[in-house]
Amino acid sequence: MTVYGLDSSNGIAARLARLLGDKYAMVETKTFPDGEVYVRVPERPEGVAVAVVSTYAPQEKRLMQLLMLLEALGQWGTPVVAVIPYMAYARQDKRFLEGEPISARIVLGALESVGVDALVLVDVHQPRVLDEWFREPWRSVIPYREMASYFRGKLEKPLVLAPDRGALQRARLVAGELGAPFDFLVKERDRVTGEVRVQPKSLSVEGRDVLIVDDIISTGGTMALAAQNSLEAGAKRVYAVCSHAVMVRGALDRLLAAGVEDVVATDTVPSPVSKISVAPSLAEAVREVLGEIA
Amino acid sequence: MTVYGLDSSNGIAARLARLLGDKYAMVETKTFPDGEVYVRVPERPEGVAVAVVSTYAPQEKRLMQLLMLLEALGQWGTPVVAVIPYMAYARQDKRFLEGEPISARIVLGALESVGVDALVLVDVHQPRVLDEWFREPWRSVIPYREMASYFRGKLEKPLVLAPDRGALQRARLVAGELGAPFDFLVKERDRVTGEVRVQPKSLSVEGRDVLIVDDIISTGGTMALAAQNSLEAGAKRVYAVCSHAVMVRGALDRLLAAGVEDVVATDTVPSPVSKISVAPSLAEAVREVLGEIA
Repeated sequence: MTVYGLDSSNGIAARLARLLGDKYAMVETKTFPDGEVYVRVPERPEGVAVAVVSTYAPQEKRLMQLLMLLEALGQWGTPVVAVIPYMAYARQDKRFLEGEPISARIVLGALESVGVDALVLVDVHQPRVLDEWFREPWRSVIPYREMASYFRGKLEKPLVLAPDRGALQRARLVAGELGAPFDFLVKERDRVTGEVRVQPKSLSVEGRDVLIVDDIISTGGTMALAAQNSLEAGAKRVYAVCSHAVMVRGALDRLLAAGVEDVVATDTVPSPVSKISVAPSLAEAVREVLGEIA
Repeated sequence: MTVYGLDSSNGIAARLARLLGDKYAMVETKTFPDGEVYVRVPERPEGVAVAVVSTYAPQEKRLMQLLMLLEALGQWGTPVVAVIPYMAYARQDKRFLEGEPISARIVLGALESVGVDALVLVDVHQPRVLDEWFREPWRSVIPYREMASYFRGKLEKPLVLAPDRGALQRARLVAGELGAPFDFLVKERDRVTGEVRVQPKSLSVEGRDVLIVDDIISTGGTMALAAQNSLEAGAKRVYAVCSHAVMVRGALDRLLAAGVEDVVATDTVPSPVSKISVAPSLAEAVREVLGEIA
């Protein structure tokens, strides 16, 4: 097996190769004068080819690099596994309004059309899209053990919270590792002032260290509100952890200003808070899909 | 039939609608805070949907918009025709070196995977890639009549030149319309100085108005050399015409500095020399493919 990485692999490609005991190779990339990207695989794979490309901004350029790498790897006829730590366009996973595209379907369709044999992703917003639109073996890993490891021993009387009911599974997994209770946040609008507040559905934050767990921190708006309201309701300290630190429009400052003690993310998107590597979870998932395509 | 356009349609969508006697609709686009693009079709197609998107720089973003538009149009179950005046990544149409991808195949595969029923392009570098990698009806139109119309009456004793043997067909078509002779340029390297010069394979440029015809002007290097050498060899005036004015790295200044009298291109890529519209040729090709998918 050979694990291939390029600019956006952020160390994950080499870590993965080390964990799997396999070879790592750096892919050659450049940009043509007209702005088109160029990719070349410097050496043919020894057995299965594993391509690690994360597709954060500039998303479309990285998606193109990913597709080019996968298509190039296909020329030797060996199986190709795509590892996409952050998959762009995953959130438009259904037609919210008539006339809208299902963007996730476009990305998955393009991956299929270049002949990917298996796909390993990190914490896709709605894994259902893969069931619907991707026919090869796949995994979407939630790095809950890595998240829990980071916080183990750091929290007093922890309470793990999901920002909404849909995100509860992720919080449940982290809480399970920490031996902590968990809940999800519900929004309430004050009928007089119109002010929106969030609070746990059933449990109290009072005197607890609260750990809010989400898949993506984008602008950080919801997370900041949750932190502020938790502190107002008597939480001792508030921590935030996510898989993907997309972090736009001053998200990190917003969170810290809202009183969050520490913001933590994985290395799927580079950020000043990418303190956890998803490589161990990815290595396990790669082993699993290899078993299915063997 | 409804013809849809967005930012990069450059007027071609509306011109096409007018030529075909059909409806034109502007597609809604925006960019999310994280940089992902958003597309929405404001109204469902009346019959066949024709999407006009040119994919010049930023190529990958425009390709994504194109795929999103096509996928969105697929939701109503009517046939979808993609009109791509400039198709990015068409020039990497084979593996020039081992380990390279066939980028054109990736683009065509992605178009197929969103369910395009027919494809109309302008002057693809090697139309052979469509034979190899695209299974639906397609046309690659060479706007030779529009090019010839622009120069008709402007040239004295015209000689039409292709920059190389592979580009001869385009020059032949333009020359046929102008009733002029044509030839292609060959490179010669001076054995002593190492200097590269180009000259027509068989005909003389002396006392003639030379019209050099190519598919793309990118940096303009080859075209500038051809112009300079033609003038040195006694050509009266030199004109340059191309389908796609990609024009990077000061291409236009380079050409004018080399003595080119006038540089002319179509509207597939916006540029200060985009004086010809490909809409008439595209309208004809759209009618043809509609006949095949009906």
